[in-house]
Amino acid sequence: MTAQPRGRRRGNPDTRAAILAAARERFAASGFGGTTIRSIAGAAGVDPALVHHYFGSKDDLFVAALELPVDPRAVMAQQVVGPLEGAGERLLRALLGVWDDPQVQPALLAMVRRLVEPGGDALFREGFLPVVLLPLGQAMGVERPERRMPLVASQVIGVILLRYVVRAAPLADWDADLVVATYAPVLDGFLAGPLP
Amino acid sequence: MTAQPRGRRRGNPDTRAAILAAARERFAASGFGGTTIRSIAGAAGVDPALVHHYFGSKDDLFVAALELPVDPRAVMAQQVVGPLEGAGERLLRALLGVWDDPQVQPALLAMVRRLVEPGGDALFREGFLPVVLLPLGQAMGVERPERRMPLVASQVIGVILLRYVVRAAPLADWDADLVVATYAPVLDGFLAGPLP
Repeated sequence: MTAQPRGRRRGNPDTRAAILAAARERFAASGFGGTTIRSIAGAAGVDPALVHHYFGSKDDLFVAALELPVDPRAVMAQQVVGPLEGAGERLLRALLGVWDDPQVQPALLAMVRRLVEPGGDALFREGFLPVVLLPLGQAMGVERPERRMPLVASQVIGVILLRYVVRAAPLADWDADLVVATYAPVLDGFLAGPLP
Repeated sequence: MTAQPRGRRRGNPDTRAAILAAARERFAASGFGGTTIRSIAGAAGVDPALVHHYFGSKDDLFVAALELPVDPRAVMAQQVVGPLEGAGERLLRALLGVWDDPQVQPALLAMVRRLVEPGGDALFREGFLPVVLLPLGQAMGVERPERRMPLVASQVIGVILLRYVVRAAPLADWDADLVVATYAPVLDGFLAGPLP
């Protein structure tokens, strides 16, 4: 499940770029579930084995196609996975650590904008949710992650929008501790509290 | 503060359209606070009195420039204003009532997309927030609305994104009662609970 370290991504850069372009086009058109490595290889005009050689699993290829400066699964596995107690705080701290990094933020903003564009719904629903969010919920021992993790996402995305996209006070001005103090209880409720 | 009923909006449709176009351009460039009726009138090539005649106050003109199928201030005043107790539920029910209406939803989706586009930050921060959200918080008797209403917005926008934009389960499939049961306690906490 972990992404290949960059150092091991050898091979023809044109071939890699063609595979990534085909992957983005296929994932956008058919969603994550409806896309096969074989169909991406066909669209890129390469052998499926070459796709696996360059990118690993379909999950890995999906994350690579997001063109994020960090692999969200690696960040989550290192900083968020652990007991359910305190999970809301760990999740927020990992998220703020990545988003508050000025090197990383522009690519994340671009991803949020893609999400809201027509067609971006499949990117979230059939890609980011099953590849990143649900495995994270399972790794934290969340009960019924398919129901709880979207609720977590509904609060996290709103914090991201107010703090980083529209940059509204007070969220845009608060330090990480204030954001964590405000939202960790909400996330803990969604992760482990009673569901309606 | 209430918008003029449509039936009273007489006058030359070209002049109205020119004023609205100038208002959108000015609000986007300078924000709500940095824009005057006089500057909009100048950009549209009309007398400021004519802007007031067609659109009423600057607040009214801003809401008209959003091109929403409903005036959010009217919906809020009718359905949300009241005691702080139960305010989270009233706010959610009013919001879901408008968003679940298929006649209204496309224009609201377009507004959400404008919000996330480059430049959309001022639309929210210097327009929607002072014209719609802060007066609503004041009318509900919220303490420190400039601090609490953005927190409310951070959750409400996330619900809108998951339910209507990316249409992710379970939020997209739940009826209004389930959404209210899940999120009213969160909103009540932001509206009246302890702040960090």
